[in-house]
Amino acid sequence: MKVVILGADGYLGFPLTLRLLERGDEVWGVDNLSKRSLGGKSAIPIASASDRVDAIYEQRYGDRFHWCYDDVTHVGFMSELLENIKPDAIFDFAEIASAPYSQQSVENAIHTQTNNITGTLNILFAMKKYCPDAHLIKLGTMGEYGTPDVDIPEGFFDAQYQGRSDWLPFPRQPGSFYHLSKVHDSFNIMLACKLWNLNSTDIMQGVIYGSSTPQMGDDPRLKTTFYFDAIWGTALNRFCAQAVAGFPITPYGTGGQKRGFISLCDAIRCYELILDNPIKGYRVINQFDEVYSIMELAEKVKQVAEKMSLGKVRIAPISNLRVESEKHYYNPRRDTLDALGYKRGIMLDYELQRIISDILPYRETIIENFDSIKPEVSWT
Amino acid sequence: MKVVILGADGYLGFPLTLRLLERGDEVWGVDNLSKRSLGGKSAIPIASASDRVDAIYEQRYGDRFHWCYDDVTHVGFMSELLENIKPDAIFDFAEIASAPYSQQSVENAIHTQTNNITGTLNILFAMKKYCPDAHLIKLGTMGEYGTPDVDIPEGFFDAQYQGRSDWLPFPRQPGSFYHLSKVHDSFNIMLACKLWNLNSTDIMQGVIYGSSTPQMGDDPRLKTTFYFDAIWGTALNRFCAQAVAGFPITPYGTGGQKRGFISLCDAIRCYELILDNPIKGYRVINQFDEVYSIMELAEKVKQVAEKMSLGKVRIAPISNLRVESEKHYYNPRRDTLDALGYKRGIMLDYELQRIISDILPYRETIIENFDSIKPEVSWT
Repeated sequence: MKVVILGADGYLGFPLTLRLLERGDEVWGVDNLSKRSLGGKSAIPIASASDRVDAIYEQRYGDRFHWCYDDVTHVGFMSELLENIKPDAIFDFAEIASAPYSQQSVENAIHTQTNNITGTLNILFAMKKYCPDAHLIKLGTMGEYGTPDVDIPEGFFDAQYQGRSDWLPFPRQPGSFYHLSKVHDSFNIMLACKLWNLNSTDIMQGVIYGSSTPQMGDDPRLKTTFYFDAIWGTALNRFCAQAVAGFPITPYGTGGQKRGFISLCDAIRCYELILDNPIKGYRVINQFDEVYSIMELAEKVKQVAEKMSLGKVRIAPISNLRVESEKHYYNPRRDTLDALGYKRGIMLDYELQRIISDILPYRETIIENFDSIKPEVSWT
Repeated sequence: MKVVILGADGYLGFPLTLRLLERGDEVWGVDNLSKRSLGGKSAIPIASASDRVDAIYEQRYGDRFHWCYDDVTHVGFMSELLENIKPDAIFDFAEIASAPYSQQSVENAIHTQTNNITGTLNILFAMKKYCPDAHLIKLGTMGEYGTPDVDIPEGFFDAQYQGRSDWLPFPRQPGSFYHLSKVHDSFNIMLACKLWNLNSTDIMQGVIYGSSTPQMGDDPRLKTTFYFDAIWGTALNRFCAQAVAGFPITPYGTGGQKRGFISLCDAIRCYELILDNPIKGYRVINQFDEVYSIMELAEKVKQVAEKMSLGKVRIAPISNLRVESEKHYYNPRRDTLDALGYKRGIMLDYELQRIISDILPYRETIIENFDSIKPEVSWT
């Protein structure tokens, strides 16, 4: 298949590029490299974009890879790209993806929302003109739903009101301006699919954990990022980094916040399933493997790290600067992926071991950046 | 009260400015005048901004008016404005408000959404910092809801799903990138109110009809716009213009599309009611007087115009370039305004007479711009 990956230099876009090349697809990888200058601290050192591209070209599938250094928000670029390639599928991973970043200042809130929305609108209009049959696979987030006190369906539900009913978008209650940008995208895509008969899978992505995939092998140029700072790292990444560095693990508040999680390898497998099973029209998929509370994850990391002889690991909750429920109902559905044949490939414990092994050589990097783990951005 | 009106040069902002000055408020009117260069055709000639300001200053309440020529999307300006004034209330009417404009091109879709979202985020962050107790009165649209097959509550409803229930935002199904920008705003405001304890009334505004208010008197500098072109004019405006010019009235499709409508004078009265009854937190108000189908309005305009001896008026439906239901259930609620004491001030027939009288002297302007009434922007 001819596949465009927008955000191909990112945490997900890069390993997905490697996997699709391995399995025989032709891949156009697009990135403006802006994420590299936003200050995230990666435990695993990341090769320059040109070194990454060289490494891919040296592989036997290098001739199926096309690297495009450009910006998804540029109207002219996107038109030309889709006009020339007419891809079968487009993965859109090219967004600014940090809740704390978006809450930090008015400038960052505006940057996050306008960048993400502009990119998505740009893709939709170019698809309409040049490849209306392509499959847009868009990265949203489970965070679009927030934590309602009812089960969470996949995007739509049978709404009952005043004795009548209709099949309507499920209410969204995101908790940050970043998560809101994904909701804005979802609604824009939903309309474009309705008006122009475009085809899109909108992935409500759970939190992804993992530091390597089989395709990376031993080539250090093929590694992906492992951000552990308070702005760009996930809670689980911070916990692993803290355990490795000998710092206490610091859940925010009581740690009762529940979220859906999935490993990097399983996430990549899901993207393949979705790519191989396109849809006519607009489809929402909830993509996660298992629901855990933040405190459960902290305990898991502690157990695994102690088993790996990293010494005694302490869990020391800190005050929660976010506005979020720390005790709540949480029951999202995962119907579509199950129907497509999704099976968990990797257990959390095993993946945590691998993460810790992967970042252990970079213990000094984590220690040097100790300050960056501490949250500074308050939601209020 | 100290009131900031963003978009004070606009169709609604200007008459609201006049009314609030008349009743004794101190008003800061802000506008970047960008709407004036977007190509809308107004039957009623509109004075320059400086002539308008002169006319206000010449009134006995002129010393309570402050004119600010600036842009709501400028971060520095908004901070300074709210820091200096610390207003009691802020009306936000400063948005790009045209569905056809937003559907015309990728550039216009991006312009509409980024302009509207940026302005709103900018206001919210500045309020948080400088006037967290102020009341933001934000102009949304009934179009945010679309036309669901159930009643439409005011923003929220008791959602039932899989045997559980929660009080959740009512699903939105807007039909254009412009209407989507208002949904994006609503969600951004909802979050800001939750995180920062800001106070906002989000008005789901029905379609407004009317060409004059008592405060305009006979001063031509105090008239408001009456757009009748296919991009910036409402269906009712186009129908009145067509009747006056002796053209056939052209509903899109069967004209079975139902919407909520309210007269300009009643809308201004509602803004006063809302201003005088602020809220703690976030409130959604559905603001309309009566639901009509487009064909009912066409018939009304025909009747009134024929009674006013404008000659025989023909209704000649044209093909609908929009994607919208032309036969659908529509039953929005209007609880809050009724509770605040809203009563209709003007009957549709009477207001139509007044509109036709107001624009009759400008028959030649309408005839000269005949081509602009014909819709050119297709939703598909």
